[in-house]
Amino acid sequence: MSALKFPEWMALVQRRTESALDEHLTAAHIVPERLHQAMRYAVLGGGKRVRPLLVNAAGEMTGAPLARIDAAACALEFIHVYSLAHDDMPCMDDDVLRRGKPTVHVQYDEATALLVGDALQTRAFEVLATPGLFDDVPRQLQAIALLAQASGSRGMAGGQAIDLASVGQTISLAELEFMHIHKTGALIRAAVMLGALASPQAQDAEAMAQLDHFGKCIGLLFQVVDDILDAVADTATLGKTAGKDAANDKPTYVSLLGLAAARDLARDLAEQAHRSLAPWGDTAQRLRELTDYIVSRPF
Amino acid sequence: MSALKFPEWMALVQRRTESALDEHLTAAHIVPERLHQAMRYAVLGGGKRVRPLLVNAAGEMTGAPLARIDAAACALEFIHVYSLAHDDMPCMDDDVLRRGKPTVHVQYDEATALLVGDALQTRAFEVLATPGLFDDVPRQLQAIALLAQASGSRGMAGGQAIDLASVGQTISLAELEFMHIHKTGALIRAAVMLGALASPQAQDAEAMAQLDHFGKCIGLLFQVVDDILDAVADTATLGKTAGKDAANDKPTYVSLLGLAAARDLARDLAEQAHRSLAPWGDTAQRLRELTDYIVSRPF
Repeated sequence: MSALKFPEWMALVQRRTESALDEHLTAAHIVPERLHQAMRYAVLGGGKRVRPLLVNAAGEMTGAPLARIDAAACALEFIHVYSLAHDDMPCMDDDVLRRGKPTVHVQYDEATALLVGDALQTRAFEVLATPGLFDDVPRQLQAIALLAQASGSRGMAGGQAIDLASVGQTISLAELEFMHIHKTGALIRAAVMLGALASPQAQDAEAMAQLDHFGKCIGLLFQVVDDILDAVADTATLGKTAGKDAANDKPTYVSLLGLAAARDLARDLAEQAHRSLAPWGDTAQRLRELTDYIVSRPF
Repeated sequence: MSALKFPEWMALVQRRTESALDEHLTAAHIVPERLHQAMRYAVLGGGKRVRPLLVNAAGEMTGAPLARIDAAACALEFIHVYSLAHDDMPCMDDDVLRRGKPTVHVQYDEATALLVGDALQTRAFEVLATPGLFDDVPRQLQAIALLAQASGSRGMAGGQAIDLASVGQTISLAELEFMHIHKTGALIRAAVMLGALASPQAQDAEAMAQLDHFGKCIGLLFQVVDDILDAVADTATLGKTAGKDAANDKPTYVSLLGLAAARDLARDLAEQAHRSLAPWGDTAQRLRELTDYIVSRPF
């Protein structure tokens, strides 16, 4: 595996994830067909699969079996896609384009988008709770609890609530960071930790604490880069509506810091992330490559 | 416990459930405050707590510890309330009154109602995944998987999708039953099974199969009675908008069978439910009383 060049490794993981997502979704001919079709529409055939890539990188690093890596990657991606389907709805961000396709409520209808999100969240927990997925059942329970903490009102959903409340408000850099640590950061951090939890062995506590810090850094890094891209890239490149933060009067790293300082922050976070990987030595190669990939998306 | 008269037992369980729900919800002063307040608004101070009552009845019957019964009851009630908050939204049933109070999107706003439902679902799984809740961790995992199956696209959320698709359609009695087995039945059935799973001991397989059949019968029974109440009771009595099935052109047991035959069906299902409890002997007293309570709500 580690002999592969990074782009090849990434393409391989993305292909394997796509087929795992397909397998972990209910077939489109099962009743209710329209809901199952819409769930597949929302999940399949799009996205960079950043969270699955992180699960794979951390999972390979700690010797986790592939079936368990795939299940954890699917659970995280289902939570992520549920949040996209709901966030795009008219009562939230009211967006029409996602991953280069019409959003779920545009392609189907609002009620279906609501149910797609609800059912994808449930499916995430169902996949992680599959009997026999882990040999070490207490570790499996820990994985479920970690996903729940990262997703709920003190994680992703809470971050979304803070985001909504911040529209049109003047907020500080600390408040912006607090919001993103929850909204985007919690799930990215969970991806790294779930990858390591998928390993059959418990890892060194200090190395795990550093890995958690790595997850926190790249979660923020990802958001800073996203804000920069939203400000400078076009809709065709992004596959989602560009410039919508400014249009929605949302505070971003770019609106608070300016473009140059936002780029400096991205570089600083990337350096912090790299330093956190020190205890993992050469085994952290993929996580290092992913960090560079996140920071070097075109901007 | 079994010395208490049924109304006293019910009141006691409802009080204990209310305080368990309060404890298992995040405090209203924790950021994001508005989301946590709205989650508490949606959950606390209302409802008959039918699912918690069933968990308690099945849990007491099988000797489950109270803390585990309470956690399972809270998880089920969080899933139930999340589904109410989402179902009441304008893009679904568009209702303004629930449990005698304004619905969540009326009291707060649509985005908050969406997030309240999302975060309550997550909280349900988080509560059930609490480390140490079960001594027997594989049994805990089974409980989580059971809740997920009952809630997702092949359970409650799927039933809601079928319900939406059936508005204004002519459907058969078999199709109506299929819808309700999913929409309402799956979670009620899960309540009974989770109560028994909360027991420290595995139960006799045949008795468990009969208990599952009991859960299926009272799930349907509950819906038939709900349809009758919607047709004959007034809004003040129900604490939610009465007559809305007819107003929304929704097929119900009353619209398909007429009132008299719907009442006969309710009695028949109650008898089936009672027969399924035979293997449990006297220990099933509370489940029998709950069956009679469900069937004898005023109509």
